[in-house]
Amino acid sequence: MPRINTHYQKLRAGYLFPEIGKRVRAFASAHPDASIIRLGIGDVVLPLPAPIVDALKTAADELGVLESFRGYGPEQGYEFLLEAIAGHYQAQGAKVAPDEIFVSDGSKCDTANIQEIFALDNVVALTDPVYPVYVDTNVMAGRSGEADDTGRYGRLVYLPTTADNDFEPPLPSGHVDIIYLCSPNNPTGAVMSRASLERWVAYARKEGAVILFDAAYEAFIREPGLVHSIFEIPGSRDVAIEFRSLSKTAGFTGTRCAFTVIPKELCGRDGSGVPVPLHGLWTRRHTTKFNGVSYPVQRAAAAVYGPEGRKAVQANIDYYMENARIIREGLVSAGYRVHGGQNAPYLWMRVPEGTSSWDFFDRLLAEANVVGTPGSGFGSCGEGYFRLSAFGLRHNVEEAVERIRTKMRI
Amino acid sequence: MPRINTHYQKLRAGYLFPEIGKRVRAFASAHPDASIIRLGIGDVVLPLPAPIVDALKTAADELGVLESFRGYGPEQGYEFLLEAIAGHYQAQGAKVAPDEIFVSDGSKCDTANIQEIFALDNVVALTDPVYPVYVDTNVMAGRSGEADDTGRYGRLVYLPTTADNDFEPPLPSGHVDIIYLCSPNNPTGAVMSRASLERWVAYARKEGAVILFDAAYEAFIREPGLVHSIFEIPGSRDVAIEFRSLSKTAGFTGTRCAFTVIPKELCGRDGSGVPVPLHGLWTRRHTTKFNGVSYPVQRAAAAVYGPEGRKAVQANIDYYMENARIIREGLVSAGYRVHGGQNAPYLWMRVPEGTSSWDFFDRLLAEANVVGTPGSGFGSCGEGYFRLSAFGLRHNVEEAVERIRTKMRI
Repeated sequence: MPRINTHYQKLRAGYLFPEIGKRVRAFASAHPDASIIRLGIGDVVLPLPAPIVDALKTAADELGVLESFRGYGPEQGYEFLLEAIAGHYQAQGAKVAPDEIFVSDGSKCDTANIQEIFALDNVVALTDPVYPVYVDTNVMAGRSGEADDTGRYGRLVYLPTTADNDFEPPLPSGHVDIIYLCSPNNPTGAVMSRASLERWVAYARKEGAVILFDAAYEAFIREPGLVHSIFEIPGSRDVAIEFRSLSKTAGFTGTRCAFTVIPKELCGRDGSGVPVPLHGLWTRRHTTKFNGVSYPVQRAAAAVYGPEGRKAVQANIDYYMENARIIREGLVSAGYRVHGGQNAPYLWMRVPEGTSSWDFFDRLLAEANVVGTPGSGFGSCGEGYFRLSAFGLRHNVEEAVERIRTKMRI
Repeated sequence: MPRINTHYQKLRAGYLFPEIGKRVRAFASAHPDASIIRLGIGDVVLPLPAPIVDALKTAADELGVLESFRGYGPEQGYEFLLEAIAGHYQAQGAKVAPDEIFVSDGSKCDTANIQEIFALDNVVALTDPVYPVYVDTNVMAGRSGEADDTGRYGRLVYLPTTADNDFEPPLPSGHVDIIYLCSPNNPTGAVMSRASLERWVAYARKEGAVILFDAAYEAFIREPGLVHSIFEIPGSRDVAIEFRSLSKTAGFTGTRCAFTVIPKELCGRDGSGVPVPLHGLWTRRHTTKFNGVSYPVQRAAAAVYGPEGRKAVQANIDYYMENARIIREGLVSAGYRVHGGQNAPYLWMRVPEGTSSWDFFDRLLAEANVVGTPGSGFGSCGEGYFRLSAFGLRHNVEEAVERIRTKMRI
């Protein structure tokens, strides 16, 4: 038998969401009459707006006609979409050229695959709590040691981000090479301040590190002045890569479109210390292992940036953020301490003293029939926290909050 | 600066198709009146059949309505598509369970990513000529040494498949762990015989190797009795993985859908020699780094297996295979030796004695204004050969053949 990649065996069993699914199924089959409300996994519920559906259908029609049929497109994405995205960056005050954008089928894929262009001996820093994909893909590639009892892997540098530091990831005490930052944050819902991002860019410049900046939730920022793109920070273009997604922004979790931005001046270094542009390495990776996003999906994505699409998408975001406000106020009035939910679709609540995140999960399911996500699933610093998502229908959100207020008051 | 993955630096510069594109652009700009016919890159030209377009549009409409909206789907693919594919396998005489199928956005991605679940010290065998993605992705991962002057990489085992062995990949003389086979073959258009596949399965069983079987072109097989799936061969289920694609089968090069089959009993072994099911490893890879194929695309793919879809898709395949016949007969009558094109959409012709593949490319472009693919681009054993694709519109194919017959007769 061929030898397997044994790094996979280091992975702690069971990804978070399958475990949640298992417990919910067990509860549902034992309580068939319970009306369960799911605010756990961050999946959107509102339908695709009409301009986006129309773009999908028009493109499908084009593919059905000889004269307008399209086969292989450019792996990086069609010019019409690259231009639309670059225009959106410009409107946000960040300079990104169309050929610095790589369109893909998801930010999960992009944030998972990006590590491939880096050597295995780089030191990786991540926040704790963290989106598990950043960790798992580095473990699978061999950039970590074994996991300890708390679930932390050797060789990875964990940056605790808790209420103690206002959820601002602290700079590492020593040198690291690769840093994953996510703002607005999944799971904490915190947005990194401009000053904090400036410190990170300065750190990366001084240490020769690269920042992998996940901005999948930037569209949920409400407060003016907060940073949407790492490329708003001066000096970031030669130390940062940015990921964005239409999944939550435009309801594309089932439609699939995202993109990665790699500035042309950003370099790593080879074995002799010679700088090598990461843009070229990623181009090679992207063209060798990927064949471009489905043409109708790219047309749908471009419609998100059109005047009608933008308005419709904004209306959906407003709807979810009103949900977030309702959850936030409800939880506070029920006696909970709550973070996030003001510039992000996630609320990060403290569970009652002396309760674990999973205990609270089980209680919330049993008593209020509401599903959330245990904070400890995102890392050991998430213990004692619990994530609720604002992606729900209004009446479900209101009902969930009402149940928590009446049955789970502290 | 972070250290890059220096294995990328081993890659020989310039993927084949960009170089072709460059030469064609140069010729076109020097000869603006030339009517260039492209039979180089294997891209389909016929529009998507109506039942497939309808499925795309119906699914787009579903996404636009609250009650039928779908967000994240199962990463492996929706049950409706898995069942349709498993049914197709059954009709072909191969037993594949729905949960052994992993739907993806392309066979390029699948054949590129599959190597991740194997250790880096496995010995990889490939045919020469070969689809470059198998080679490049192993080089990028670090399973090869440096390239030599002929473009062959150290540590990889090359299996010459030429007219001398009737394009049947010969068994390796020693032990190898991972074997890439492609039948019907890109680029040679040859189909491996049942006896040959039986020998390969016996070899893999004896040596403890895994066969990565690329069946992207199986739908183009015309002769009854030829093997469509490696799983038609007894004993294959614990030594083989199969890849299939709708790209050429159903005109999905721009729509994007493919799948991988990993039987449950297929194992690799870990550091202690303990067998580990590859199905579980790939599930972990697929769920960690991928988020499923776009829902409308999966509906379109399922339509390919419906009665109307199947008929329409078959009509397109018949059209391309009639092109193949026309090209084949035309080339023979012009004095060329031609292989393939009878159970595959590719024709693999000998270039005139004393001419290199790239010389012939330049001559064919200059004299007949026809674009093909130099055989040497697929490996050193492809030198002296030239690939033409049957994916063209009939009048272009006829015109190309006529130009070759009149201007390039030997």
